[in-house]
Amino acid sequence: MRMVDIISKKKYGGVLTKEEIEFFVKGYTKGEIPDYQISALLMAIYFNKMNSEETLNLTLAMENSGDRLDLSGIKGIKVDKHSTGGVGDKTTLVLGPMVASLGVKLAKMSGRGLGHTGGTIDKLESFPGFSTSLSEEQFIKNVNDIGMAVTGQTGNLAPADKKLYALRDVTATVDNISLIASSIMSKKLASGADAIVLDVKCGSGAFMKNEEDAVILATEMVNIGKGAGRKTAAIISGMDEPLGYAIGNGLEVVEAINTLKGKGPKDLLELCVTLGSYMIVAAGVSDNIENADKMLRKTIEDGSAFDKFVEFIEAQGGNRNDCINPDNLIKVEKIIPVLSDMDGYISYIKSDDVGMASMMLGGGRKTKEDVIDLNVGIMLSKKVGDKVSKGDVLAFIYANSSSDIDNAKIKLLDAYAFSDDKPEIKPLIKRVIS
Amino acid sequence: MRMVDIISKKKYGGVLTKEEIEFFVKGYTKGEIPDYQISALLMAIYFNKMNSEETLNLTLAMENSGDRLDLSGIKGIKVDKHSTGGVGDKTTLVLGPMVASLGVKLAKMSGRGLGHTGGTIDKLESFPGFSTSLSEEQFIKNVNDIGMAVTGQTGNLAPADKKLYALRDVTATVDNISLIASSIMSKKLASGADAIVLDVKCGSGAFMKNEEDAVILATEMVNIGKGAGRKTAAIISGMDEPLGYAIGNGLEVVEAINTLKGKGPKDLLELCVTLGSYMIVAAGVSDNIENADKMLRKTIEDGSAFDKFVEFIEAQGGNRNDCINPDNLIKVEKIIPVLSDMDGYISYIKSDDVGMASMMLGGGRKTKEDVIDLNVGIMLSKKVGDKVSKGDVLAFIYANSSSDIDNAKIKLLDAYAFSDDKPEIKPLIKRVIS
Repeated sequence: MRMVDIISKKKYGGVLTKEEIEFFVKGYTKGEIPDYQISALLMAIYFNKMNSEETLNLTLAMENSGDRLDLSGIKGIKVDKHSTGGVGDKTTLVLGPMVASLGVKLAKMSGRGLGHTGGTIDKLESFPGFSTSLSEEQFIKNVNDIGMAVTGQTGNLAPADKKLYALRDVTATVDNISLIASSIMSKKLASGADAIVLDVKCGSGAFMKNEEDAVILATEMVNIGKGAGRKTAAIISGMDEPLGYAIGNGLEVVEAINTLKGKGPKDLLELCVTLGSYMIVAAGVSDNIENADKMLRKTIEDGSAFDKFVEFIEAQGGNRNDCINPDNLIKVEKIIPVLSDMDGYISYIKSDDVGMASMMLGGGRKTKEDVIDLNVGIMLSKKVGDKVSKGDVLAFIYANSSSDIDNAKIKLLDAYAFSDDKPEIKPLIKRVIS
Repeated sequence: MRMVDIISKKKYGGVLTKEEIEFFVKGYTKGEIPDYQISALLMAIYFNKMNSEETLNLTLAMENSGDRLDLSGIKGIKVDKHSTGGVGDKTTLVLGPMVASLGVKLAKMSGRGLGHTGGTIDKLESFPGFSTSLSEEQFIKNVNDIGMAVTGQTGNLAPADKKLYALRDVTATVDNISLIASSIMSKKLASGADAIVLDVKCGSGAFMKNEEDAVILATEMVNIGKGAGRKTAAIISGMDEPLGYAIGNGLEVVEAINTLKGKGPKDLLELCVTLGSYMIVAAGVSDNIENADKMLRKTIEDGSAFDKFVEFIEAQGGNRNDCINPDNLIKVEKIIPVLSDMDGYISYIKSDDVGMASMMLGGGRKTKEDVIDLNVGIMLSKKVGDKVSKGDVLAFIYANSSSDIDNAKIKLLDAYAFSDDKPEIKPLIKRVIS
């Protein structure tokens, strides 16, 4: 088999066989096939696409390219959740304790990643003493004992994906559904869960800008999951404004805790209940979505989700008191109100811009080397549908000395659009693919 | 400027600016832009194409990437000729002396190349003592004194093209008209001629398999030449059977000499007269093609072209007697007749197969390291339109001990197709683009 023939086949619109896909993934992982041949193939894939079978085979080849997390020591059905990423997305922190309190096993491996804020493990580091690098043994033990654990990536999971992703990033070959879906799913499959629930976000601030594209990506990922023998479902959720009110690492932790206490934003709770329903049905805890919905809401009302959260935080070295009084977690020099210069209804909040503003304050990473300030961020005061007058507070900026406050403020004001009439509120949950 | 943005622009169908094209050609030549970004761009160019302006700018950037041959020391208009390559193509050896005898200056730089036979300089090395590595001084002097000289590539002409071509070869990005045209023309432009006449072949055994594609390539190259301020014309000629009867380095030299003596094949003479006409008009020796045609035929009839050939061979170290008695140039152990196993008219001779057979005998290079046997090859006895009976000689194989005679014979017989009725003979000269 010659790599140039594989490139040529895809260039002319051919369908690659399982053997051809394994050949290039293995060869590339081992360093036997050079970057320049893979990047030419990636561009040919961008133009001529891959069908579902090719996409599944690519995912499996990447899953098999390195270590696999062995979750066999965990009793029961292991469920994983993945979000394609949005602004203000603190879902895992709320959802995890909710489903764990109902007996679901959530063994979550999480990356740090680049973007508007850090990843889940960055956010969790807001708790003094909290450890995000558990040994595999401790990780398994915690999931068995408590029902959930979150740790940074261990082992060499899907190294082919890591190499391919880095190459795609510098060769303008990121935006192909098969490549995106296989990248996400190869890591999820290697992480060993029996069932996977995906939160595919669409809108400004999400990777997929419209619902149509989000549905295509979600369908592809669900196909892959099922093709690999895992129960898989995807929720298409809107990113037409940030999720909840808090954007920023520590601020999102506080909002997550408030939600677990029953005092959180409606949209965040709704998303957690929807995702959670599919998780507990997949885990066999409930046999239907309606019942699952009720069970999940009850974990908030009766305090069992919050208790589970405290248990989880303590098991990884955090402090119970920080859960009870989370406001202590945030240490900023300034809290600056951002005032409206318009009268009217808020018709849209461009999540992208809010995320950028958070980044300017120091809350996100542009490169892997950047250090995040976990304290800074933005607390929205008004969201889509709210009526405001000139001079009303739209949001508060939480800043420290290294924050670029002036530009963050401009960016934040740019994010808001206004209308004279009350705008129609779009549903948060757009569709379910399962 | 970032390379990833240039790739992205072309991927989305954008038109690259002169600055963007210069950026990537310069960066790649200097080794500042990695292969993997260039190969992704090449694949995007394959799919989204380049317009004529982009193609011209790419050619000029490659022309400017290294040395340029300085022909200013040559008096008069310098004319160059280039063939896209075919089987049995010994045109330069005949055409050169014809136009030089009429006062045209032909300063020809020629590569060795890979393929069915060697390049022009390989063929000329059939003459004992002939030098194909003239100093630049000697080269200029010979062109001034005699009107023509042929030398191997000197200097670092169009290094960007060299690097890009090697990359295209291993990334399945060869077959794009803009990339092919710019590759050929960047070297021609750097070789310094004032006028360029192109022989674009089409058919089996040629790079362009059909006339349509050949016309597109020829048009693109003529646009580039004119855009770069050079007089340029292209002849589309057929490769529906090998040119002339001889295939192989020394055998082609013998056929070229016979043609100069007025005893050559009709198709070869016709092509030389057509290409030559455009060359001498471009050089201002004749003001119209009809007159040029007559002038060129006269150089054969009155012996002036042959005399010029002898002068040229002697000036580069060859021997006059080898021109007068060229059969002495060929030294083979065996000459084997290949007999027809069919009755009928020859309707087609697949040039590709004949070329492959010549290669099996040792007459061509597969890799740069291969050593060519200048003596071996094939002399066709019959061509398209000839009637043959079972047992008639179709061709003679000229072989030496290392030749793979058996397989060459099979390949050669495969090349012939027969029909019961006399086939229509397609014209050799299909079109002229100027």
